[in-house]
Amino acid sequence: MTTTTPVTFERHPDTYRHWRLTVDGEVAWLEMDVDEQGGLVPGYELKLNSYDLGVDIEFYDATQRLRFEHPQVRAVIVTSAKDKVFCAGANIRMLAASPHEWKVNFCKFTNETRNGIEDATEFSGQTYVAAVNGSCAGGGYEIALACEKILLVDDNSSTVALPEVPLLGVLPGTGGLTRVVDKRRVRRDLADVFATRPDGVKGRTAVDWRLVDELVPRVGFREKVLSRAHDLAAESDRLPAEQGIELAPLEPSITDDGIEYRHVRGAYDRPNSLVTLTVLGPEGEPRLDGWLLRLTRELDDAILRLRTNEPDLGTWVLRTEGDPEAVLAHEEVVLSGKDWLSNEILHYYKRTLKRLDVTSRTLIALIEPGSCFAGSLVELAFAADRQYLLDGPPIDNEHSLERASITLSEANFGVFPMGNGLTRLESRFYGDDDHLTWLARERDRALSAAEAVELGLVTDAPDDLDWEDEIRIALEGRASLSPDALTGMEANHRFVGPETIETKIFGRLTAWQNWIFTRPNASGPEGALRRYGTGQKAVFDRKRV
Amino acid sequence: MTTTTPVTFERHPDTYRHWRLTVDGEVAWLEMDVDEQGGLVPGYELKLNSYDLGVDIEFYDATQRLRFEHPQVRAVIVTSAKDKVFCAGANIRMLAASPHEWKVNFCKFTNETRNGIEDATEFSGQTYVAAVNGSCAGGGYEIALACEKILLVDDNSSTVALPEVPLLGVLPGTGGLTRVVDKRRVRRDLADVFATRPDGVKGRTAVDWRLVDELVPRVGFREKVLSRAHDLAAESDRLPAEQGIELAPLEPSITDDGIEYRHVRGAYDRPNSLVTLTVLGPEGEPRLDGWLLRLTRELDDAILRLRTNEPDLGTWVLRTEGDPEAVLAHEEVVLSGKDWLSNEILHYYKRTLKRLDVTSRTLIALIEPGSCFAGSLVELAFAADRQYLLDGPPIDNEHSLERASITLSEANFGVFPMGNGLTRLESRFYGDDDHLTWLARERDRALSAAEAVELGLVTDAPDDLDWEDEIRIALEGRASLSPDALTGMEANHRFVGPETIETKIFGRLTAWQNWIFTRPNASGPEGALRRYGTGQKAVFDRKRV
Repeated sequence: MTTTTPVTFERHPDTYRHWRLTVDGEVAWLEMDVDEQGGLVPGYELKLNSYDLGVDIEFYDATQRLRFEHPQVRAVIVTSAKDKVFCAGANIRMLAASPHEWKVNFCKFTNETRNGIEDATEFSGQTYVAAVNGSCAGGGYEIALACEKILLVDDNSSTVALPEVPLLGVLPGTGGLTRVVDKRRVRRDLADVFATRPDGVKGRTAVDWRLVDELVPRVGFREKVLSRAHDLAAESDRLPAEQGIELAPLEPSITDDGIEYRHVRGAYDRPNSLVTLTVLGPEGEPRLDGWLLRLTRELDDAILRLRTNEPDLGTWVLRTEGDPEAVLAHEEVVLSGKDWLSNEILHYYKRTLKRLDVTSRTLIALIEPGSCFAGSLVELAFAADRQYLLDGPPIDNEHSLERASITLSEANFGVFPMGNGLTRLESRFYGDDDHLTWLARERDRALSAAEAVELGLVTDAPDDLDWEDEIRIALEGRASLSPDALTGMEANHRFVGPETIETKIFGRLTAWQNWIFTRPNASGPEGALRRYGTGQKAVFDRKRV
Repeated sequence: MTTTTPVTFERHPDTYRHWRLTVDGEVAWLEMDVDEQGGLVPGYELKLNSYDLGVDIEFYDATQRLRFEHPQVRAVIVTSAKDKVFCAGANIRMLAASPHEWKVNFCKFTNETRNGIEDATEFSGQTYVAAVNGSCAGGGYEIALACEKILLVDDNSSTVALPEVPLLGVLPGTGGLTRVVDKRRVRRDLADVFATRPDGVKGRTAVDWRLVDELVPRVGFREKVLSRAHDLAAESDRLPAEQGIELAPLEPSITDDGIEYRHVRGAYDRPNSLVTLTVLGPEGEPRLDGWLLRLTRELDDAILRLRTNEPDLGTWVLRTEGDPEAVLAHEEVVLSGKDWLSNEILHYYKRTLKRLDVTSRTLIALIEPGSCFAGSLVELAFAADRQYLLDGPPIDNEHSLERASITLSEANFGVFPMGNGLTRLESRFYGDDDHLTWLARERDRALSAAEAVELGLVTDAPDDLDWEDEIRIALEGRASLSPDALTGMEANHRFVGPETIETKIFGRLTAWQNWIFTRPNASGPEGALRRYGTGQKAVFDRKRV
């Protein structure tokens, strides 16, 4: 099952097919009510609140709108609108029929949404509560795990479960194993029992094992849940807000050759398997809800579309165009803001940069005259696998005095940490505190090619005579390499130093899952994932690897 | 290529085919001189000091004997006896022809040996120096990376390289990517250039990029290297020693049904895909070079044989037999020793437990009357995925008053850390410092079934009526699950909390490598690994996953 229609990622609550978002003062209800016939592509029914990418895209949309359009919300209750079922997890028939790259990309996006929920709880004072009002399995329990609290209905039948290993021969794909032991600190032997038991755990045992926080009787369930949500809302440190801002449609212009937004242009070069993503700097007077927010939304959307719809474009060339001073002026309005909206914009840009960090494409930054790699936008370059700076005039105008530069700002020193908890500069100069101190002194001025080389901010700085050849060779060289080896190599190089739940999910859990997805024991004709629901038992090669 | 002859892991310097070990006072030379015709199995030639499992088994043997038989050694020089080539890495034809599980197991063993070199440097005061006297590629450079210092001959031609990605479409398999950025702190964009450049980096650039520590002219190379080794030996904190102890042959008794050493018995149950490993407690008077050292050597050997030769035995049942008091008395002699040999024995037992932690087999500890799970031996139970304790008399003697127990000792509180730097108890009760404090107060006495349950030390404690059924169901249930899903699940559950270079290598790098090994872009008929050396270019599916 692949989709020939490109997947889009913009949604609106008015037209959700699978969720109901209701805001009531400081508490929002996010109710899952999956339309069985509403699969993103044909070939499966979304029974028992199981989900596919389309369901999760709406989920993501809701979490974003809660942060921007409903700033008064301080607690979000995730529950099901169906009777006796919370969520059965990712749809198995969809997974079984999907090609490998679709499964992997689907898991990545759903993981990012779960991480976003935790981000909202930690940094936005919008605390998520899972109100598990029926059976809750696999990806369903992983949604609950992403919430700060898990309340389970005490009805003597509803369970939480991670049945992927025993029923499907794969791992829970959205952080389940990691969050069980690392976040909820379930003892590893109990985690082992739990993750190999297809029927899961209910009631008191679920509490004792720390799989859920509290049991709530079925009678009065919603009232009790609401009361808990108000308790959490009362503890929230969310900044006060009167009204939100609307996330209006982005309306990019789309052709076979690319995609254009207001501040982001993507130009496809299919013969060379690459796309050039150009970010345009701001114009006009800085305003809080202006350029940076819009740019972030566009970049987010472009990343998601390219990942899903353009798997053959293996290299993303990152460029900028504009005035570095304008970038600094515009970002300053947001960086200096002490209000809820500034906070949301900065965390949203942070999350979007994190998407780049885990994108399985080669990222090459080209820093040329006319570019505006300053402050927030330098993070794009630091997210890249390499940075090339043109040390000379523009290629098409050798008499120009314009030169490329990089300008660091406070934005590069702690505002946008990576998943490993380090800034991109700290990752780049891992353990070299002296150099980081030196760099902090070089903020707020344009660094020349020679300075950027000296400071280790770029991989190379060819002059205008060498530039085109060197870049061409680098890009052609990259396109000739094994895409799989590049994905593994980049995933290892990008995250130096400490690990977090987030990096473990993307680095370790995902890598094991990818391996398992490719194995005949899961995806072969007699594999567990393919045979699930057929009544036939899977046949395994019993060799341990 | 599989071997039908079981692989053995005991070697002796007198009969090495691929290495020369020369000890000269405080410095040892370990010279690689691979016999091209000496492959472990037929079908490839070990050209250019490339290695296979057989070469690495000798390497491991040398590192162990240096620690025990040559305690006066404080620095070890790893170099090549061949002209102009240090080591070309793992043999490609061997890898290309190997089944998946062989490749993965081979990488695991070689990784453990590299980690052991770092362990010798850090904890034994035997500091390894790589004297790179010729071209050094792939696994060759990864041997150098495991050393504390890398000295590269300055001859205008010798390079260090990680050519796996560009030439083979796989990752460096023994920690290369991780050690480059995490240990040597090479900037990630330079690491990216380095790992995609098939011809590597030489001379000044290799020093500037931190890939090597120092250039040494060809003239006087060995003298200069020796001088550096003496400098490092002078800084070593190795405890003084007059003479070593011999690691005599273990001489296990081997049948189709199992393997028996003096203190370790492995009994195979092939129909149920399991092996019962029984560790026997000590007898007689405690002596420093007695039971624990011998047990460790036997356990180490048994783990390696089972992993390599018995991939179908997916569950290892861990048992002990003996007197818990005797275990404590014997371990006390080693734990209280302040000499070099006590130190070596404890670190060796630590490394052997770490082998268990990364073994891709389900580990189930059975704690029965007559067992001796005390102190050091409790670590075997804590290394297991589950622990079952029989709460009642022995199954075959219902009138007996003998009961199973667990006895914690100082051995469980810091002596044998896992790869993540935590003790197994700290991993088990991750973040629960109060409970760890409580446990520390419960040391040095036999804990009953009820106490073990109360303290969370066992998964379950069935009584004698339920025992056989519960264990049978647990083992049969395990055997019915997908071996791949179990491997991934266990690898994720076992390492909670912080990460180290070691856990990154086994958890993240290995998982990505395993995935890449299964992909057609590497191992398919047109894949890069299979086509290497044929003159034909690999054909890639360009989709990024």
